This record gives sequence, structure tokens and C-alpha cells, in this order.
Amino acid sequence: MDTYIAVDVGGTQLRAACYPQGETKPLLQKRTSTFGKDGTPVDRLLDLIATVWPDHATVKSIGVAVPGPTNHKSGILYRAPNIPGWENLPLAQIVQSRFNTRTALGNDANMAAMGEWRFGSARGHQNVLYLTISTGIGAGVINDDRLVLGQNGLATELGHITVLPDGPLCGCGARGHLEALASGTAIARYAAEQLAQGVPSSLSITPNPSARDVGLAAEQGDPLALEAITRAGRYLGYAIADFLHAFNPSIVVLGGGVSQTGPLLIEPVRQAMTERVMSPEYLHGLAITTAALGDNAGLMGALALAESISK
Amino acid sequence: MDTYIAVDVGGTQLRAACYPQGETKPLLQKRTSTFGKDGTPVDRLLDLIATVWPDHATVKSIGVAVPGPTNHKSGILYRAPNIPGWENLPLAQIVQSRFNTRTALGNDANMAAMGEWRFGSARGHQNVLYLTISTGIGAGVINDDRLVLGQNGLATELGHITVLPDGPLCGCGARGHLEALASGTAIARYAAEQLAQGVPSSLSITPNPSARDVGLAAEQGDPLALEAITRAGRYLGYAIADFLHAFNPSIVVLGGGVSQTGPLLIEPVRQAMTERVMSPEYLHGLAITTAALGDNAGLMGALALAESISK
Repeated sequence: MDTYIAVDVGGTQLRAACYPQGETKPLLQKRTSTFGKDGTPVDRLLDLIATVWPDHATVKSIGVAVPGPTNHKSGILYRAPNIPGWENLPLAQIVQSRFNTRTALGNDANMAAMGEWRFGSARGHQNVLYLTISTGIGAGVINDDRLVLGQNGLATELGHITVLPDGPLCGCGARGHLEALASGTAIARYAAEQLAQGVPSSLSITPNPSARDVGLAAEQGDPLALEAITRAGRYLGYAIADFLHAFNPSIVVLGGGVSQTGPLLIEPVRQAMTERVMSPEYLHGLAITTAALGDNAGLMGALALAESISK
Repeated sequence: MDTYIAVDVGGTQLRAACYPQGETKPLLQKRTSTFGKDGTPVDRLLDLIATVWPDHATVKSIGVAVPGPTNHKSGILYRAPNIPGWENLPLAQIVQSRFNTRTALGNDANMAAMGEWRFGSARGHQNVLYLTISTGIGAGVINDDRLVLGQNGLATELGHITVLPDGPLCGCGARGHLEALASGTAIARYAAEQLAQGVPSSLSITPNPSARDVGLAAEQGDPLALEAITRAGRYLGYAIADFLHAFNPSIVVLGGGVSQTGPLLIEPVRQAMTERVMSPEYLHGLAITTAALGDNAGLMGALALAESISK
């Protein structure tokens, strides 16, 4: 039997699974924490892969989703903000040498996009825009059945597109990026600012309300919370109009915790996007949907990546 | 002998040329005006192709550059703003049926990008961002050796990305698009507005100064003209930073009349782009250059398209 191994590296947790060729139900699946007393995160990752290695089957290739930008050609992870010391780490080569099996890396947002494209909401589409909206905003684009990677694997960092030139500071240091306006962090920050200015809200009794708290308050009809969600949705819609002009996808998939806010977020997205799009052909037949794979998107994307390199 | 025919359709002029396989020097090249007494623009186009048809050689395929958005799958031209009546025109099929030869269409900016990639400034690159800055702003992107087209051929309309949400109106009806801030039209408009406000300038003696007039005055050190060019360059640089994040090219090629303004435009572009880019990896090894093919870019791109479909 031929199999693939998929690995999802997170800042708190490592996951690995072994899949028979052509199947999405794993033979074996394990997880462990990223940091622990016995070994570095790299050691722990290698050990975890060994625990899902099949006894009586061949592993054709290994795909690894990592939480940071990667170079798809060299298999180097440039950096992982949540894993100290992971800088210019040749992780594909480390795994490949240890297991003598072809290995490729992809950043988590690109892997989630691949997962949704191959196994989730975007199955059957050739041109996919995937956005994940949680603490930050990540993205992945499939153009004509291929992931858009660019020269060094750094393409489709769509959370870092300027939406409002004089807008709030982004985590990356620039002003007015989409991530600084529509991520969970941005929603929570906006609500906190409004509360600090004395805007009345049911949120005033919650210490440091999170984007999730804001979403729940919005569902209860709280005006400040509704405004915070609508505002984020509108900026997201403006940005998506730009992304339609840039990539002309047939489907937009929204993943990440914030996208689970549902219609309160999606409706302003749709409205702002429709307002700003330059011609109706971009909207013709365009699907807008939420991601299907949840926490498994990265792992399933790593499986799709493993499959793609073994061809 | 095998040959290809390339056609460049403009709002005032039609050009066609026949190239031996593997060569960029045409066997035969002809041009005519788009409008005339004898026949519609389609008739004139078909007649022109017939005049460059080789007597003793096979035509393997025909590539046509057109001045408007096209669907690469159906070979339909959605519209050509400068050619009345050309709407949802199945031009690839019309040419293909008439000559019984495989034919493909591409919009002029995409074709110029292909031309520069195969035969011009971007030869040897796999990931190319091409921008043409003249009356409007057009673009084409090569990702991993393929033109980015999207679902319906409408991708990379990068002149219509919002740079300044409350900025000036764009020809497409939206506000603050790149084209409304950095095209030749935008430069001329900005200069006219400043002149109307009484800003002193050597341009005040020129009736309705064009972008070219502004560029020439800037070269002479006129402060208003310099400001108009620098302003356009800065907006272009901000937008290019976004495009680097979106496409991660290894080369940026600037074509179109306005790009010939030279360093007075390119320096502010470079500076603004560097200011706004989120991490230095995007700039590592990045070339910024002007287009090499001039008016031939569309025709050479149509040749590259013809070659690509005959494989």
C-alpha cells in the first residue's frame, strides 16, 4: 500500500497523520505539544512523524504545513513568529534526510487553501481565493489549478494589502493593511477603542472583549458590536473587490474563527464587494462560502501538497 | 516551413505579421487603420491577416492582441471601449473559421506582458509583474511561467486596485483606483487642477498640458510638474508594494508612454515601494526595469500566445 504523511505545525501543537493513497481518512493520526521538555520543536516534530509511520506500507511523500513564510523551491522556512529560533530553517531537507522520503513545505494559509480546494468547499474549482480571518489574515490563491507562490513562495500575503493608507498600524509595521482593519485583533481593538470613548455597549461589562465576544454581542443586537463587525466586513469586502480584479476567482472561501460570525460579517462583505467591483463579469457565477475543513484545513492541505509532489 | 501569425488590434490601427517558427523577425508585416470605408473593423482585420498569409508555408496558429477584456477559454472579447459595436464578439472563432487555423485572443496588457517575458526585458524570469502606464494603467502577471488569467480571463486588472479609498474618480466609476492616481490622464488632471488653483508653473503657457508636457517640464525642473510626477510615482510605488505581496515577482517591468519619464518617475516608485513592502525578502534580487519592446510589445505578445497554443 502507498501512503502519504501530512504534518501541521502550529505554535502550540504539532499534528501528523498517515493517509492511504486516494483516501482522506487517516490510518494513524497523532498530536503533541510544540514545546516540551524532551527535545526541541524539530526533535518533537521528527518523533511525531515516526509515530505515524506505517509498519507495512510505503510513504510516497511528506507534506508539512508551517506557521510562517516558506520558500517552496528550497524548502526553507523563513521564520515562524510563534516558534523562537525557527529562522531560515531548512525544514523540508531535515525531514527528507531523516526519513529518506520526499518532503515539501507550505505556509499554513496556502495549505488551508489547498485543503479547501482539494477536499473542502472549493472542490472542483480551478480558480480559488481563500482567506482565513482570525488573529491575523492569511490567504492562498489557486490559479488555473495551481497554487500561486511567486518567485520565493511569498505571494498572496493578502492580509498585508493596503486598504486605508492612513489607517491603523498593522502587526508588520505598515499602516492600513487589511489585517489591521478586519482581523479578529482589529475587531477587538476597535471595540475597545469605542468602549474607552464611552460608547455604551453590553460589552462594557466584559474585561478585554475578544473578537468572539464582539461577535456574540452583535448577535444579541448590541449596536457597538454590530458596528465593529460591519466595519470589518466592509473593509474585507473592499479588499475582496481588489482581489477579484487581481485573481478573478470563481469562488471565495472564508475560513478562520472570525468567518464563523456568519451573516453579520458576510453580508457587509458581499455588499461592499459588489459596490466596488469594476464590472459585473467578476461576480457572474461567483460563489462566496465559508471553509468546510475547520481545524483540519492545514493538515488536509499538507496531504494535498504531499500528493502533488509525488506525481 | 512553419509560421505563426500575430495580430495587434488597436483603436486606431491594426497590425499583422507572419513569423517563421523560432524567429522574431517577420516574413511579412502589414498595418492598416481600424476604421475605413471598405468594411467593418472585423472585415478589415480578416483582410489584413490574408495579406500577411505566407504563400509557401504553413501557419500553425494565430494570436490576436485586442484592446479590451477577453475570455481566454471562449475566445470572446467582452468589449473594446474604442471600437463601437465590439461587444461579446467571438473574435477567436471568427478568425479561426475564416482561416481554418487555431486562434487565441488576449487583452493588450496581458499580451504586452507576454511579449516582454518571452522576447523583451523579462526574458528568463518565471515570475513577472508588467505594468503599462499611459492613458490608463494595464497589467499582466506571469506566475511560474504562466500568464495569470483567472476564471474568465479577467485577472490582473491592476489599474483598478483601490489605492486611496476617497481618492479621485476612476474611468471605471470607482474612487481612488491606481489608474485614477498614476496614469497619464491622472498626471495631466492633477497638473491642470494645480494650475487652476494658481500654482505658478512653466506649464501655465501650455493649453491643456498632457502627461508628456508635464514630464518635459519636470525635466526642466518645474516644481509643479515635478510634484505631479513624484505624486504619481509614489502612488505607483505603494501599489507595487501590494502587488509584490500578491504575486512575489522577480522582476517589475514598466511599459507605456508615462514610464518613459525615466528616473523622475522611477525613483519615487522605488522609494515608496521600499517604504511599504512588509519584508525585505520581496526586494531580494528584485529587478525594476522599463519595457524593451515599445509599440511592438502587443504584437510580440500575440506571437508568444500563438506559439503557446500550437504546442
